[in-house]
Amino acid sequence: MSSHHIVRDDQEPALIIANGASCSQELMGQLLEWSPFVVVLDSAIERVLELDIKVDVILGDFDRDFNPEVYLEKQFPLEIVYTPDQNKTDLEKALDFLIERGHKAVNIIWATGKRADHTITNITNIVRFRNDLKIVILDDHSKIFLLPNRFEKWYPKDTKISLIPIGNVSGVHSQNLFYPLQDDNLTLGYRTSSSNHVAEDGIVVIKHQEGDLLLMECWD
Amino acid sequence: MSSHHIVRDDQEPALIIANGASCSQELMGQLLEWSPFVVVLDSAIERVLELDIKVDVILGDFDRDFNPEVYLEKQFPLEIVYTPDQNKTDLEKALDFLIERGHKAVNIIWATGKRADHTITNITNIVRFRNDLKIVILDDHSKIFLLPNRFEKWYPKDTKISLIPIGNVSGVHSQNLFYPLQDDNLTLGYRTSSSNHVAEDGIVVIKHQEGDLLLMECWD
Repeated sequence: MSSHHIVRDDQEPALIIANGASCSQELMGQLLEWSPFVVVLDSAIERVLELDIKVDVILGDFDRDFNPEVYLEKQFPLEIVYTPDQNKTDLEKALDFLIERGHKAVNIIWATGKRADHTITNITNIVRFRNDLKIVILDDHSKIFLLPNRFEKWYPKDTKISLIPIGNVSGVHSQNLFYPLQDDNLTLGYRTSSSNHVAEDGIVVIKHQEGDLLLMECWD
Repeated sequence: MSSHHIVRDDQEPALIIANGASCSQELMGQLLEWSPFVVVLDSAIERVLELDIKVDVILGDFDRDFNPEVYLEKQFPLEIVYTPDQNKTDLEKALDFLIERGHKAVNIIWATGKRADHTITNITNIVRFRNDLKIVILDDHSKIFLLPNRFEKWYPKDTKISLIPIGNVSGVHSQNLFYPLQDDNLTLGYRTSSSNHVAEDGIVVIKHQEGDLLLMECWD
């Protein structure tokens, strides 16, 4: 736990540990390597403590006879943020909290798996934070983020890339994807570009005009 | 495997075993109890055979050096359906196949977990089969189906119910939900009714005017 005493670089994304399925130790280790500011959602703290991770904030509505104060000593200094608002999920509240504290970027783990309603809500709700926070959701098979209207990144050939519209997305163009898009309209449930892949080693460009478009890098 | 020789009731939903995370043996056992017509997607057959389940159809594009014919003898009679269309997922092809064969209802398992692109695509693509097939996706934490414009079902108090719009859904009304909806508009990513629950033992009514609305019964 000595890593807690490292002076932090403010550029390092914070880390939210949500309450879905746990990820591999390898992924967790990568994300903790640079001592990010760690926020744990509600009763996930129990599973987190088993992994001997130093946490900065525990946040939630703490229902179900759950008392966060028992962790104060073990995790000193630990901030307990009580967020009773029933109109938001714990993950949204954690994102709001990080924005208030001035964070610019966050990685989120344990946000998928287990309950399908939580999974789909967690993945899709990131679109509303477009202007406030750079968000990446990660699990053992996926890396998910919202695309700006023009996105460019170098990828190796055959990298699997899925473009998932949250609702309708218009005017989608791609360069260097195996199934190219050219002024296409994508609609969740009807037409997506799931399971596409990179045509050649090099820059992939994805542009879209309107709407919320997620990019998912996934692997089996 | 003797259950295969039972004369089938055509009312029994078929069962599709997709290629995501495996479910509990308990859920699998419940779904196999009445000897449904079983369709397995592509390389999931390897995990299915370990469970000593009799399969009727194996369907897929069989890429990745996968030869389905090695299963013909073990699983006799087994139908191999080769579906090379790269514009559809294996799950969509399996749903098309069942519709062609005259099936009216299907349960789907192993469609969630692992890759997030597959999970979200599998869950949301069921909306386009609205008029052709009654579809239920199940996993160890979730039961998911598309709502007709008026839906009624008896639930015990406190049953967790999430209403997830795939895109926009207008004119949503509820009766007997703890967080009631009254001529509400729901939009995925912005406003859903996730983590709602049943107010009292009794009939829950959910009506909506336009759009595709999924109901998810989920549990921790």
